[in-house]
Amino acid sequence: MSVPFTAKNVNLSKGPDPQTSIQTERAAQKFNPQAMQYFLEGSRERAEVIKALTQQMERDPILFTDGSFYDMNKNQLREMTAVKINRIARYMEVDSPDVYAQRLSLIGVFDPSVCTRIAVNLGLFANCIKGNGTADQIKYWTLDKHTNYLRGIYGCFGMTELAHGSNVMGLETTATFDKENDEFIINTPHVGATKWWIGGAAHSATHCTVYARLKVDGEDYGVKTFVVPLRDSNHDLMPGVTVGDIGAKMGRDGIDNGWIQFSSVRIPRFFMLQKFCKVSRDGEVVLPPLEQLSYSALLGGRVMMVLESYRMLARVSTIALRYAIGRRQFKGDNVDPNDENALETQLLDYPLHQKRLFPYLAAAYVISAGALKVEKTIEDTLAFLDKAVANNDQKAIMQSIGAMKSLFVDSGSLKPTCTWLAAEGIDQCRQACGGHGYSAYNGFGRAYNDWVVQCTWEGDNNVLCMNTGKPFVKNVIGLEDNGKAVKGGSEFLNQLKDYTGSGASKVILENANDITDLKKFIKSLEVAIIRLSSETAKTVRKENFDFVGAELVNISKLNAHRYVLSTYVDRVDAHDDASLKPYLYDLGRVYAATVVLDKFSGIFLTFNVASTNAITDLAKIVIPKLCKQIRPNVVGLTDSFQMSDMMINAAIGRYDGDIYENYFDLVKTLNPPRNDKAPYSAALEGMLNRPSLEERERFEKSAETAEILSK
Amino acid sequence: MSVPFTAKNVNLSKGPDPQTSIQTERAAQKFNPQAMQYFLEGSRERAEVIKALTQQMERDPILFTDGSFYDMNKNQLREMTAVKINRIARYMEVDSPDVYAQRLSLIGVFDPSVCTRIAVNLGLFANCIKGNGTADQIKYWTLDKHTNYLRGIYGCFGMTELAHGSNVMGLETTATFDKENDEFIINTPHVGATKWWIGGAAHSATHCTVYARLKVDGEDYGVKTFVVPLRDSNHDLMPGVTVGDIGAKMGRDGIDNGWIQFSSVRIPRFFMLQKFCKVSRDGEVVLPPLEQLSYSALLGGRVMMVLESYRMLARVSTIALRYAIGRRQFKGDNVDPNDENALETQLLDYPLHQKRLFPYLAAAYVISAGALKVEKTIEDTLAFLDKAVANNDQKAIMQSIGAMKSLFVDSGSLKPTCTWLAAEGIDQCRQACGGHGYSAYNGFGRAYNDWVVQCTWEGDNNVLCMNTGKPFVKNVIGLEDNGKAVKGGSEFLNQLKDYTGSGASKVILENANDITDLKKFIKSLEVAIIRLSSETAKTVRKENFDFVGAELVNISKLNAHRYVLSTYVDRVDAHDDASLKPYLYDLGRVYAATVVLDKFSGIFLTFNVASTNAITDLAKIVIPKLCKQIRPNVVGLTDSFQMSDMMINAAIGRYDGDIYENYFDLVKTLNPPRNDKAPYSAALEGMLNRPSLEERERFEKSAETAEILSK
Repeated sequence: MSVPFTAKNVNLSKGPDPQTSIQTERAAQKFNPQAMQYFLEGSRERAEVIKALTQQMERDPILFTDGSFYDMNKNQLREMTAVKINRIARYMEVDSPDVYAQRLSLIGVFDPSVCTRIAVNLGLFANCIKGNGTADQIKYWTLDKHTNYLRGIYGCFGMTELAHGSNVMGLETTATFDKENDEFIINTPHVGATKWWIGGAAHSATHCTVYARLKVDGEDYGVKTFVVPLRDSNHDLMPGVTVGDIGAKMGRDGIDNGWIQFSSVRIPRFFMLQKFCKVSRDGEVVLPPLEQLSYSALLGGRVMMVLESYRMLARVSTIALRYAIGRRQFKGDNVDPNDENALETQLLDYPLHQKRLFPYLAAAYVISAGALKVEKTIEDTLAFLDKAVANNDQKAIMQSIGAMKSLFVDSGSLKPTCTWLAAEGIDQCRQACGGHGYSAYNGFGRAYNDWVVQCTWEGDNNVLCMNTGKPFVKNVIGLEDNGKAVKGGSEFLNQLKDYTGSGASKVILENANDITDLKKFIKSLEVAIIRLSSETAKTVRKENFDFVGAELVNISKLNAHRYVLSTYVDRVDAHDDASLKPYLYDLGRVYAATVVLDKFSGIFLTFNVASTNAITDLAKIVIPKLCKQIRPNVVGLTDSFQMSDMMINAAIGRYDGDIYENYFDLVKTLNPPRNDKAPYSAALEGMLNRPSLEERERFEKSAETAEILSK
Repeated sequence: MSVPFTAKNVNLSKGPDPQTSIQTERAAQKFNPQAMQYFLEGSRERAEVIKALTQQMERDPILFTDGSFYDMNKNQLREMTAVKINRIARYMEVDSPDVYAQRLSLIGVFDPSVCTRIAVNLGLFANCIKGNGTADQIKYWTLDKHTNYLRGIYGCFGMTELAHGSNVMGLETTATFDKENDEFIINTPHVGATKWWIGGAAHSATHCTVYARLKVDGEDYGVKTFVVPLRDSNHDLMPGVTVGDIGAKMGRDGIDNGWIQFSSVRIPRFFMLQKFCKVSRDGEVVLPPLEQLSYSALLGGRVMMVLESYRMLARVSTIALRYAIGRRQFKGDNVDPNDENALETQLLDYPLHQKRLFPYLAAAYVISAGALKVEKTIEDTLAFLDKAVANNDQKAIMQSIGAMKSLFVDSGSLKPTCTWLAAEGIDQCRQACGGHGYSAYNGFGRAYNDWVVQCTWEGDNNVLCMNTGKPFVKNVIGLEDNGKAVKGGSEFLNQLKDYTGSGASKVILENANDITDLKKFIKSLEVAIIRLSSETAKTVRKENFDFVGAELVNISKLNAHRYVLSTYVDRVDAHDDASLKPYLYDLGRVYAATVVLDKFSGIFLTFNVASTNAITDLAKIVIPKLCKQIRPNVVGLTDSFQMSDMMINAAIGRYDGDIYENYFDLVKTLNPPRNDKAPYSAALEGMLNRPSLEERERFEKSAETAEILSK
């Protein structure tokens, strides 16, 4: 029966208008996001460089990244990454080192595989040579051979093995000195010693800095570093070198991680990196002043990860907050239920939604300050060390080593806490976008998969936390046993007596006012660390350090929060644009209240650092009030990150806030609706249109057949 | 210079032997894992069915899954999933419904996309019809048309829209009654009302149960359900139906999620599902007794997710624990540092590692009991409702509705807590495997990506928590205002007076003994819920429910823990094999101590449910002691899950514990080392072998050129 077409009964009503929400709020912002960006990036100059670099890369036909990125499979990503690196090599030749570092850090936001695949060459291979080679070795391998420009040599970093990661001292690859021929023989004794996870090894690398046990005359001198060629200038593998592809990973599929086995591979003695450790022609061995110096290659990476944590938190909180402004769902309790025309409530007007997201917005701000500080510290420390070595100034070298140790603690404590926080932030921001957070095109899935390896590589987070928590307990034991005063960043431990023993019940945070007093809050963190370290020391005296791993992790986390929060407050105090300060202090308070106190309330209560009254206030007064203060400024605070739509690369997170149209358009562009039958439709149709089971069984089980076959 | 080949200086030492570790420990187990499996699955019969089904699927040439699964990209996964479903359809024709449910639940472990893509047909489309259709409608659509056997009809579930997910009442698709022609006109008014995320829509579905606003004579009767054909028997789209592919997702790429727009699509009036709600020929509307009845299709899914949480936790904790037994790293503080021959310490012998992993092992056990109970409850409830409806027994219908409401609360409270816990478990187990956890071939990445949508779909976890936390606060207000006693599962709230007001300071957990007393611990959960609900009620009286979202989430979580833990203890109490009980109680204690108390210590302390002394004991005594007790039984407790290597599908998690060889072999098989040059090697070689910048710039910037051009 045919029916005359009529629109009479058809609903053609207007759809939601998320753009107006964000535009209205943007127009009402009370501070200048551009000025805020100068604070975040440390200076106007740096912010401007970042802007110009972003523009350059957005326009570059090869580097430009959009939603199609999320449709690429492993092989496509591997290839695109290589093509991008080839392109970036051209920029490297003209960028200054500073600018180049900024460029790489920005690429890390929108295509982390590209960043990492370059960083294994520049950040690990080259840094390993810089950290362990003589000045001439450094010049030869990195400059004369153009490694620094991704020309001639492409290095990889051969530290981890299949059976050894965290325990670098336990690596089993050997470098045996063959005195007769003045060579080292590099060998992989068994499967467990196969170099594993080596970024760039599968397809790219021509050389590898190999961590191997130095063996001379049967004696084992521990793990040292050697440059070992993997591929010749035709890119063919050297004899004795076996390389394989590690295959699919959870993320960062653009990187060709590989494994390497060395089977009696010979290198000249002078391929050993010998800034600190030397083997003479006769096999005499000179050992380095500090074994850990050979891991300094990892330092830069750890510092970089703090910066990346800031940028990642900025990116994902921007997406989730813009979505929460445009998206409306349910009419909340504040809407008059009798008002039929009332719009549904913006997600971000629900207090729970604010409480879920503001911690990550605040964390981006607070960590930005920590990143800038630790970046500056490493620059200064390495420059000082290089100068000391160049001048062969032993006193300065020892001084540098002290500074390096302190940097190991700071970066080793920040790296886990910041990378965990960013991982959690990606996940929470995704969940806050509901189902749309699960679409690949809104960026969270890839972000998470690419990100979480940061919690594992270049120092497993838990292992780093234990290593950096331990000094606090040792210092406390030192203070208790012989009053040995602590120097450097942990000086606050010297207040031990004031807050333990008879001072153990002194409460620092009594109420809402105390919690929002940032100086007092930092004090409370110091006291929490003191008391937890002191309590842990008691257990260590009875048991051992292995026994208190969980406590060490907490100490390290609290210390990282103390470091970034106090660095942040110092930076805000000293900032020259007073108009921004109220917003910045509030973000610091949000961080203190949610990222720290809410998570560690058990510890704060157990050790009397906060009263139960304070914790009740936290939930009932502090967090609601801070959220209310932050809420009107959210558009400005996210716009201040100045992330372009390319960097955001999420349909629901774009600047214009037109969440539904942007998202729908992208989905249609990448998946044209015309493809409404699958290429494999035969499998489906064959199933749906199959004859009945009886027919397909040739009626062999029918009553009729039964009669025949039973006779 | 050529050097004579000699092995003299080469190290050919033996590698690690992880197999021996697991074998030794397995031989020392003191209980029978098979007997334990009967406990976990509820009965010997069920355990045996599971074993036989697993064997059948492991041998099936199409269903069998191995490491190559992790190398498949979206298109390959989509196709393979369809081919597998085609195969499974053949089993369905001969399986009993019970067996079939088990089969599907097992497939969910090793290939969740297959499970979901079938479940949108059977679990959502068919359940929607069962929940909302008349007996004849049910028979017609599900049996006569063979939908239940994936033949003829393939249904999808058209609930969520681009702009509406959680707020089902706010959906905007319309079904307008055209009285003249006795038809409904289904229409998508604007982009925001596009049906979105619809599993199966892109390629598979022939029909859709559409949730649309019923409009009759200009009046809006709210959201009702309609069967709308999407594709004809040639699998071509019906006129007026636009379908598109939603494209790439974070996970479950084997499912063809799609979007649907209806443009004046006409269906006969009798395509409306009218068990509860009816439109007569003349446009008279009969409304259902409870609107939520139309969402009962979601109930089965929520219950299923509790079972899946158990299986997922079982799977990932098995992988991480087997790895932690085979893997050795560092010589721990318990190893004599002077013993050169001492092996490195097994990861699992570090207390921190135990504390990181045992909570998820325990959670698998505890949740298994909750899953069995809630599964039984839904079966009984739905059977009772069906009978009542068949007999048109109004009293029984109303009784069923009461039971359904209670099931909404229980399943709505368990689903979020269990799915979050499993997500966290996957992530923590991955991190506990270090870098190898990040390899796709060890299963965690895919597991996580496929899993986390469970926290969002079929009721966003936070929204569900708020909905299920609210009744507790309302009940408390009812008790406070007019002493209205609470009935059903939350009866414990009637103790309100004993534990608030003058009873507010009564501490339940004073020390280590209290914490490990399971009955007392369950009591402490009740008291925590009472006090938190009462405190929240105070705020609600001043503000509103939106204001206390975070508190409602905590109440819901605490109640879920109370439910599963008490169900578990009851099951252990009643179990007939006494030899297993000591192990089972200990796992319950681990759950209480780590999953509950350690995470909620802030709440327990704030509300005096636990003393600070108890929390200090928790860290120093309870957790270390419980871990020590569990440690020797880990191989048995994981073997008890009886997951075959195919179900585990992780190279480092196999039964034989030969972690390194298994992993290396799989990597080599899937990525033959012969491919040591990439298909895209030209991009790399072109970069590395490029001429100098000066040359490529045609020396145009040289001093010589400068002279010429400056003249």
